[in-house]
Amino acid sequence: MEKAKWIWHPGSFELYHSMLLHNRRTTTRTYEGGERKSVYYYPMWRIDSPQKNAILEKTAEISEPEELEFYANTKTANMVVDGKAYPVGSCVRLEAGKHTVCLQGFKADSFPAFYVKGRVFKTDRTYIVGGSDDKRGRHAGYSEYYTEPCDNPEIFKFLYKKMYPVSKKEINGGVLFDFGKEVFGKITLNNLDGRERFVALGESMEEALDVLECQLGLNTSGTSFTSEPVAFRYIFVPELKGASAELDFEYLPLENKGEFKCEDELVNKLWDVCAYTMLLNSREGFFDGIKRDRWVWSGDAYQTNLVNYYLSNDSDIVRRTIRILRGKDPITKHINTISDYTFLWINSIWDYYFYSGDSDFINDIYPEIIDMLGFIEGRLDADGMYERKPDDWVFIDWSTFDEAGPICAENMLLARAYESISNCAKVVGDKKMEKYAYERHARIVDDINQLYWDKEKGAFIDSYKSGKRNVTRHANIFAILFDYTDKQRQESIIKNVIFNDEVTKITTPYFEFYELDAMCKIGNYKYMTDMLNSYWGEMLRLGATTIWEEFDPTKKGIEHYEMYGGKYEKSLCHAWGASPIYLLGKYALGVMPTGAGYKTYEVAPKDMGLGKISGTVPTKNGNVFVSFDGKTAEVVSEIDGGTLILGDKKYPIVKGERLIATI
Amino acid sequence: MEKAKWIWHPGSFELYHSMLLHNRRTTTRTYEGGERKSVYYYPMWRIDSPQKNAILEKTAEISEPEELEFYANTKTANMVVDGKAYPVGSCVRLEAGKHTVCLQGFKADSFPAFYVKGRVFKTDRTYIVGGSDDKRGRHAGYSEYYTEPCDNPEIFKFLYKKMYPVSKKEINGGVLFDFGKEVFGKITLNNLDGRERFVALGESMEEALDVLECQLGLNTSGTSFTSEPVAFRYIFVPELKGASAELDFEYLPLENKGEFKCEDELVNKLWDVCAYTMLLNSREGFFDGIKRDRWVWSGDAYQTNLVNYYLSNDSDIVRRTIRILRGKDPITKHINTISDYTFLWINSIWDYYFYSGDSDFINDIYPEIIDMLGFIEGRLDADGMYERKPDDWVFIDWSTFDEAGPICAENMLLARAYESISNCAKVVGDKKMEKYAYERHARIVDDINQLYWDKEKGAFIDSYKSGKRNVTRHANIFAILFDYTDKQRQESIIKNVIFNDEVTKITTPYFEFYELDAMCKIGNYKYMTDMLNSYWGEMLRLGATTIWEEFDPTKKGIEHYEMYGGKYEKSLCHAWGASPIYLLGKYALGVMPTGAGYKTYEVAPKDMGLGKISGTVPTKNGNVFVSFDGKTAEVVSEIDGGTLILGDKKYPIVKGERLIATI
Repeated sequence: MEKAKWIWHPGSFELYHSMLLHNRRTTTRTYEGGERKSVYYYPMWRIDSPQKNAILEKTAEISEPEELEFYANTKTANMVVDGKAYPVGSCVRLEAGKHTVCLQGFKADSFPAFYVKGRVFKTDRTYIVGGSDDKRGRHAGYSEYYTEPCDNPEIFKFLYKKMYPVSKKEINGGVLFDFGKEVFGKITLNNLDGRERFVALGESMEEALDVLECQLGLNTSGTSFTSEPVAFRYIFVPELKGASAELDFEYLPLENKGEFKCEDELVNKLWDVCAYTMLLNSREGFFDGIKRDRWVWSGDAYQTNLVNYYLSNDSDIVRRTIRILRGKDPITKHINTISDYTFLWINSIWDYYFYSGDSDFINDIYPEIIDMLGFIEGRLDADGMYERKPDDWVFIDWSTFDEAGPICAENMLLARAYESISNCAKVVGDKKMEKYAYERHARIVDDINQLYWDKEKGAFIDSYKSGKRNVTRHANIFAILFDYTDKQRQESIIKNVIFNDEVTKITTPYFEFYELDAMCKIGNYKYMTDMLNSYWGEMLRLGATTIWEEFDPTKKGIEHYEMYGGKYEKSLCHAWGASPIYLLGKYALGVMPTGAGYKTYEVAPKDMGLGKISGTVPTKNGNVFVSFDGKTAEVVSEIDGGTLILGDKKYPIVKGERLIATI
Repeated sequence: MEKAKWIWHPGSFELYHSMLLHNRRTTTRTYEGGERKSVYYYPMWRIDSPQKNAILEKTAEISEPEELEFYANTKTANMVVDGKAYPVGSCVRLEAGKHTVCLQGFKADSFPAFYVKGRVFKTDRTYIVGGSDDKRGRHAGYSEYYTEPCDNPEIFKFLYKKMYPVSKKEINGGVLFDFGKEVFGKITLNNLDGRERFVALGESMEEALDVLECQLGLNTSGTSFTSEPVAFRYIFVPELKGASAELDFEYLPLENKGEFKCEDELVNKLWDVCAYTMLLNSREGFFDGIKRDRWVWSGDAYQTNLVNYYLSNDSDIVRRTIRILRGKDPITKHINTISDYTFLWINSIWDYYFYSGDSDFINDIYPEIIDMLGFIEGRLDADGMYERKPDDWVFIDWSTFDEAGPICAENMLLARAYESISNCAKVVGDKKMEKYAYERHARIVDDINQLYWDKEKGAFIDSYKSGKRNVTRHANIFAILFDYTDKQRQESIIKNVIFNDEVTKITTPYFEFYELDAMCKIGNYKYMTDMLNSYWGEMLRLGATTIWEEFDPTKKGIEHYEMYGGKYEKSLCHAWGASPIYLLGKYALGVMPTGAGYKTYEVAPKDMGLGKISGTVPTKNGNVFVSFDGKTAEVVSEIDGGTLILGDKKYPIVKGERLIATI
């Protein structure tokens, strides 16, 4: 029998921890006389907090008596059994028959959470929102990691381990500690001299030594000082040489179930660096970067979710991320204020279902999707296309677009969101919405093909209104990736956009993700292998221990660290750079679901010029191991439903049996 | 110069304290073997919590330099001066010129609040909501009672005084303490025997001694026990004789600026009992009753506000009450789930303006009114009338109505709400809304007169749909009170409804308020004097120390304490019973504003058969003292703008000068 879980009003756990994490960030400021300080950094979007009151209830018929033990994280809570209120700590015996158990509670400083030991009436998702709630009938929120009476959902379950600097160096009149790689956690400095002092931190050595410009620092005092958790590789303590430093490394204990090895050591190292980048950014939800912003951004998370399916395949963190991004009603702004991030949020939900098969969650989140659709449609133009509204931010990528009227790439994401909604509607059995959203998607795709295709350029242009006929890679990549145009046009795009050096190159690993996904999709694996080497490989050659937010190979030295007008403002540990894990798993090992939750899946390993490759892809119900030397493939799978595709041959994969096939 | 005030996101202070107060209530339950316990009582409507993040900002040009001292109730806060963030505790000098000061902060467990000492940039209402807030531009929230840096808006400023029982009696094997009247606060019991024991409380002696049925009790343990604040008159400690009891009486230090004296000692006593009933129910906001529900109900508060204008005339508590009731967006339910309470909430805002002249508050709350109107109109029928929707509660009064289709009384309140909105729109200069709401109100009044007037019965009937032609007092009273029908019909109502014993009498002081207000309005003062004696007077003769929630003179003994199916569930200290203060001030002393905020006002004292009367009515800018012996009136006023009306003569009242006039 499954264990009871702590339950709460859906979203409360996520909103609570999101609220805390979004308010934990600091930055540095320079004051009169050059004094440096670390100060609180205010979040840039609306931050929601959880409900302080909650009612969750369940009605069921039991054939055997059962004992209920009632726990809550607050004294202002009752377990109401068949109308009678029992206080926290009560044990109640239910006789066989039909009963209603209603858990009601209030917690002023966080959110109420309940735990009932029992058989049928043990707490889990089957409790539903009751009382006077605006959205009665929704399932209770829960986490797979809070299943014991002694658990406290107000405390996020990180793990900790002690770490020490790998080197200590006297420099510039102070002392520089190097932890050898990017790390995160509470720093303890000992043997200080008691003075108030600004201690500089850096993802790079240059940043830490640049006391006046570094992004993060500590306001230390006393002879021993422990910081709040913070990300860095280097610590510089100015004007003092005797100090020592140690770290309580804080991390989420996600197992790297996925694996990848090949004969190109750079790619092997890259995979490890990507995995470590993921580890640092996998927390309450998926973060963008661990130094900055340390926040949950939807576009970033869209990709990180996908990487996760080939690395740890943890469902809980994906669900948490989706809930954090959704926030609370009323919806008044796009997610992170970015319209494309709202569309990607919807797409991420469908992806999650496709990789996990978790229809419970689709059912749980579906009302939130529908409300989000209402918000989106309230901001479309008369043709049902999206054009930027005041207060909205159209991001797409750090690149320049022709923003006159609706932008092509943005509306491809809108179409994709409708497609995802249609898919989700099918899962929950909402036939009307399934049809409606599918038709909306098809209509937008048609319109895009008519309005934005430039025959002469053989490409989609950003704007059909300005007459500038500006071509960027972005819409053209989406057209391939989402199959939103015919084969002929796709080929034209490859030639006239992707392999056209006059079209501005992608500089963010974020959009590299989409570009490579699209190129692999059409079978151009060499494009990816080259990019792994030239783009990601170059970061490693420059000493990266984690993947950077942005990378322009033409820059030099500390130019690489500059962004947003700040000398070191770039994040050097940005999760959106971890896509090689996803790309290598999906295309090199060739493992991907063809039915939701790997009910059916294919294994189609590719020769990408990496020599012999081998690796593991984790699925909900077991791992799929693959090796391939360009000729012979070996598959060992812990799940049913697979097909090995080698050249034009197909081989059924039998769970638990080694399958070897040769081209 | 006015002092700086603590400021916060508008509504935060009110929502925070409302959340706490609505979750503080307890009740009693009986468990196996007859064990009695006090348990948490879950609130029956959605409880909102304050925003945890807030940005408030102000831009102004200063001609002289000024020093700003920045305080906040949280370390995660900045004062951002011209784009530069300063931490809590900073002192910043502004040079002459234009500046922007932005206060930003986060507090997880309550709400962020800011205080800046300064001249132009001192914190007050002139700071406005900024950042990514959904309703930018609104004025900061504040309270007149939090003006010092050492104040903490998270702590509600009650006063305390020690009180002791007036008698102690051994009875039923235990001991009964009587505090002489209804009181509220923390009880301390000493000389207990250490056993866990249920101690019974009662508003009446019968309730306290009825351990198995009393509404409130304490789960005591140890030899000394201090309770949470609770309302009671009697304490019964069973099975123990040596115990002693004391009370930390908790109250809001509102001054009774209003006064009333006459030659009828019963009425004088009644006035004092009403004032004490008000004191007990004047807290974070105006409560319904101090034992039960101890919550803020809009219909109750509508009346209590009016009483307040003749008693303490405290504006802060009215504004707090209005904000508590409004809650947060999205609006998904009527206020307290009751449609008429939503309408009355709007009317209470106009009343507040009419008595206070506080146009600042009307401007502050106006966007909230408009959103509320949107909610209301989303639930009207095609004719623009209100008919009960699922999940709505149509209250009107504890009485029985013919509820087929739209109910007459309910739609009179709807019309009145439109009228109030039109008035408020005029104050803020929203001409379009002023006209629209006025026309809507007029249309509904016309429709009501056409649809609900029953010629034969000479009265408004509840329903025009059922054909039952049921007459209740309620709509007919509103028709007079709001002037929603012509003189001829008003006279018909007096005869066929008010003085018709076949039409069910009012049993709640709540609706007695409206009935007497209407009767006084048409000059039938005797009706009120009789009712003071027969209805309120009878409660006093039965020993009431505070006014009861409901009173039926035909009941006997403890039958009076029964309500809602509970033997002692009736509240014996219910604020809606305090209307005599309002009625005597407004009609006997005859003081009422004729222009908003007493800019102009009249004093029209009446001979109500109470002998010589005298009293004081407090206004924002000073008191108005009146005495009248049926012939000669004397007025001394601290404010300009008054007119004494005596018979058909009018005398201008000069501020500070004694005016004596004789019929």
